[in-house]
Amino acid sequence: MPFEDTLQPFLNELASGTPTPGGGSAAAAVGAMGAALVSMVCNLTIGRAKYAGVEMQIKDILAQSQTLRAELTQLVDADAAAFNAVMAAFRLPKTTDQEKAARREAIQTATKKATLTPLATARACAQVIELGQLAAAKGNPNAISDVGAGVVFAQAGLKAAALNVLINLPSIKDEGFVSTHRAELDHILTKHNLADQIYESVKSKT
Amino acid sequence: MPFEDTLQPFLNELASGTPTPGGGSAAAAVGAMGAALVSMVCNLTIGRAKYAGVEMQIKDILAQSQTLRAELTQLVDADAAAFNAVMAAFRLPKTTDQEKAARREAIQTATKKATLTPLATARACAQVIELGQLAAAKGNPNAISDVGAGVVFAQAGLKAAALNVLINLPSIKDEGFVSTHRAELDHILTKHNLADQIYESVKSKT
Repeated sequence: MPFEDTLQPFLNELASGTPTPGGGSAAAAVGAMGAALVSMVCNLTIGRAKYAGVEMQIKDILAQSQTLRAELTQLVDADAAAFNAVMAAFRLPKTTDQEKAARREAIQTATKKATLTPLATARACAQVIELGQLAAAKGNPNAISDVGAGVVFAQAGLKAAALNVLINLPSIKDEGFVSTHRAELDHILTKHNLADQIYESVKSKT
Repeated sequence: MPFEDTLQPFLNELASGTPTPGGGSAAAAVGAMGAALVSMVCNLTIGRAKYAGVEMQIKDILAQSQTLRAELTQLVDADAAAFNAVMAAFRLPKTTDQEKAARREAIQTATKKATLTPLATARACAQVIELGQLAAAKGNPNAISDVGAGVVFAQAGLKAAALNVLINLPSIKDEGFVSTHRAELDHILTKHNLADQIYESVKSKT
């Protein structure tokens, strides 16, 4: 089956006028493609006599990129589920004071989850960028444009996931939660510059 | 079916140790996700009284983003086919002078095609960035992070596709072809800065 056909269900749902899946799910999917391309360069390196000296290191990069890909592909659906849970919390009854308090609490809990989910995507994408740096330096240079593309996609997943963290933080009343996760996001966003450096380095080798 | 399962066949092939699909196919897939997210914000805008004033313009953006998505999803498989054709040309017989000349010619023809394919991806991604700018300005602001993510993905598709153009150009002996398409790529790459501006503007609104 052409890949076009396998990608179509996700693309059609993304384009539709329902709020999920949206940018957060797509961020995880794009990050997963980044992880897959890091795995690809490892698979094009392992078992070749020329690269025997880095084989152990490349096998380690491969294993890590596979773990990150599994995590990111799960986050595609997890992101949609987290957003749908926020919507469900907003639809809770709000007639009595008790109902109102329970609804407020449910919205807060769901919004925290909807913040932690894209934060997990951003974190995994930052790790893919770091792996990509190693793979670009040690892996088969014939696949340099593929690992460069992988880093670009991990960076895009990070940036898009960051938007979804930032859009939720202002609704969260737990100040400790907000400051802790805002700080983590800021740290993760520094990997953005590393991705730019790797891309320019790869581009100069094409 | 979870989206994770529908995305898996493409991700698995991407990660495998075969040269296709690689970064060029993934660039088209990521660009298609960008186009889909631009369509999403249009679909979340059309038919709502509040946005009646921009409805015609948004319908036009929707139609254009759908056309670009169709083009980009086709380029996923087209990119793999173009690379496989280059590999096939290299495997042609090269015993006689006639065979050598025919093989050289076939390699040149296939390499040109393998350059024009990611160039088409880069061109379509640049158009998605421009549509995203309009959609971010005129569309439903509740979907601002989705259109921001769409622009980020179109930018990533453009950057990754550019690597695949750049990696092929040095092998092409037709100087006119090289200079014409190198100039077009340089022009397309200027949309990279526009995408950065749109992202920062969206980020400031989250």
